[in-house]
Amino acid sequence: MQRYFVSADNWMEDEVHIVGEDVHHIVHVMRMDNGSEILCNHPNGNVCKAVIKEATNEKVVAKIQTYLDVKTDSPVHATIVQGLPKGDKWETILQKATELGVSEFIPFQAERSIVKWDKQKVAKKIERWHKIVKEASEQSHRNTIPIVNKVLELKEVITRYKDVKHKFFAYEDTAKTNHQTKLHDHFQSIHEGDSVMICIGPEGGFSNSEATFLIENDFQPIRLGPRILRTETAPLYVLSCLSYYLEEMR
Amino acid sequence: MQRYFVSADNWMEDEVHIVGEDVHHIVHVMRMDNGSEILCNHPNGNVCKAVIKEATNEKVVAKIQTYLDVKTDSPVHATIVQGLPKGDKWETILQKATELGVSEFIPFQAERSIVKWDKQKVAKKIERWHKIVKEASEQSHRNTIPIVNKVLELKEVITRYKDVKHKFFAYEDTAKTNHQTKLHDHFQSIHEGDSVMICIGPEGGFSNSEATFLIENDFQPIRLGPRILRTETAPLYVLSCLSYYLEEMR
Repeated sequence: MQRYFVSADNWMEDEVHIVGEDVHHIVHVMRMDNGSEILCNHPNGNVCKAVIKEATNEKVVAKIQTYLDVKTDSPVHATIVQGLPKGDKWETILQKATELGVSEFIPFQAERSIVKWDKQKVAKKIERWHKIVKEASEQSHRNTIPIVNKVLELKEVITRYKDVKHKFFAYEDTAKTNHQTKLHDHFQSIHEGDSVMICIGPEGGFSNSEATFLIENDFQPIRLGPRILRTETAPLYVLSCLSYYLEEMR
Repeated sequence: MQRYFVSADNWMEDEVHIVGEDVHHIVHVMRMDNGSEILCNHPNGNVCKAVIKEATNEKVVAKIQTYLDVKTDSPVHATIVQGLPKGDKWETILQKATELGVSEFIPFQAERSIVKWDKQKVAKKIERWHKIVKEASEQSHRNTIPIVNKVLELKEVITRYKDVKHKFFAYEDTAKTNHQTKLHDHFQSIHEGDSVMICIGPEGGFSNSEATFLIENDFQPIRLGPRILRTETAPLYVLSCLSYYLEEMR
């Protein structure tokens, strides 16, 4: 059944009002009409089955039938802080990490980031990024859409997200040595409802000063398995492992 | 230090002889010469540090210094059997799954595969695929290069790989129900040295007859977390989880 994310304003007592691009999708792409069933997601994570009772080019009104009890969101709030990578890798990360359960994205301008994005350019891109994560959320049957932040400096990330409970950064030097704390040793302190932040460097990794700065600010260096992962593979690995630990082991 | 995979024939008692494309890379791209140090990987997984003692346009000879004790390969032989996906997704899977520790790839012509590749077309492509996995192996500091097979029919896979110990297939219907065996319950029977095969459908998933056929042939349906993953994300998730269970929990 087709799934639509509907903003909180558009939920009435027993109706959902769909406006914007999704109207076109319902009426012209899916060619649905009165009586057709859809799934509607509230930003708070609730999902209901609803039946269309009115469909025009401007608005679709659907009557709520039942709320479903399906849990597809990660039990933790996982944030990926990603050093801006080259080319279209960032969009790949947005799509795949959404499927894998991420809650929030923060792209950051790393010392070794090859791309430099000025604020104006990002403002235009952010709409596109929202579209990617919305579509990936629908596709993967998520109940919520991840937040995509604008590009920050690493210092801003540290200041604004001081209260995150578990802070990690993927450090290549940690992967290369066989004798050190493994990922599971770190994950074992994570519990349902916790906030987890994982910081990943761009293609060239973190500079020494960034690594020092992260450690000084309570970020623990982690290895992501024994092999060296590309920057765009690293968030997918860590999110998959987090899903395995929290969703597939209990 | 730059890493090169050298075929078994080219290992002498205390020397390694490098021929082919890697010679160009050493001499002209890296501009190395006598005295430069490189890492050489034997197909059996051994790695040594070697010093170049002769470099021409045809051949590089390096003297073996020491064998290294680095374990970067997965402790199991994991085979991804992948229903042919659209576009360049197959190449993405080859690259990323190599980073994540896969040992062998088998692309198969699924009922719902949108692309149909004739045998001639594949023969030409397979050289390119080998290049992708070789480069990804170097990049991720693996000790071995995964095997890439030609495209098979599902029946051929079943017949040829009868002896694989653990056989799974990712089944969307299993992901959608909350109450069933989780991935960890399946993984717990896997031990070091075992062979593991994971079969993944193309974009449209497995047909009912394929699913029935797999079950009849001892493939167990598994879910890959509670969300629905795209065909190209599924192998990355399962390999990451396998790495977490076998390499990061012990």
